[in-house]
Amino acid sequence: MSLPLTIESNSCCVPRVTSTASVEDAERAARVFKALGDPTRVRLLSLIAAGEGGEACICDLTEPVGLSQGTVSHHMKLLAEAGLVTREQRGKWAYFALNGSVLDAAADALRTT
Amino acid sequence: MSLPLTIESNSCCVPRVTSTASVEDAERAARVFKALGDPTRVRLLSLIAAGEGGEACICDLTEPVGLSQGTVSHHMKLLAEAGLVTREQRGKWAYFALNGSVLDAAADALRTT
Repeated sequence: MSLPLTIESNSCCVPRVTSTASVEDAERAARVFKALGDPTRVRLLSLIAAGEGGEACICDLTEPVGLSQGTVSHHMKLLAEAGLVTREQRGKWAYFALNGSVLDAAADALRTT
Repeated sequence: MSLPLTIESNSCCVPRVTSTASVEDAERAARVFKALGDPTRVRLLSLIAAGEGGEACICDLTEPVGLSQGTVSHHMKLLAEAGLVTREQRGKWAYFALNGSVLDAAADALRTT
């Protein structure tokens, strides 16, 4: 395993974990990973990824995870606040899509090579 | 952004978030991200990455994060339980190194491309 030799910040929004992280960098990175650190939120992300066109209506997310719409809305709010998903209101329903750039930045933050 | 078309499990230990995740897959992935979801633990990982030979003695980790050795030990235990670091006892002190394969697997789990 080779380790990064220089201080490096991710171009988007999740600083590299495996390099020198300032307190602020660490807080930003931890915020994203904390949002990912819940099994229901991981499943919600995977359901959105599997949705038609890479998006999903909140109305289609409640049944697969077996939780109330209020609880699912709360999880989606945390994912949106972390920047992991984008939200679009269409009439009665909110639609969510993965935010690929933040997911990829979070992935890059963990790279050891 | 292209999304994975098939159900895919990571070869190591962190199932892909951006594909169809079973309840068990989601729990495994969330466990790793939960360990990463704390600013102190992110800083500890970055300190280890920056350490000589990619490792660090617990005795060198307390001062930079400004916490007691007991608190740092607790954080290191959570990181070790998540598989993110390995621990080696050398005489009086524990030495920690990043577990590159788990970090890389966690990174792969977030890839959208």
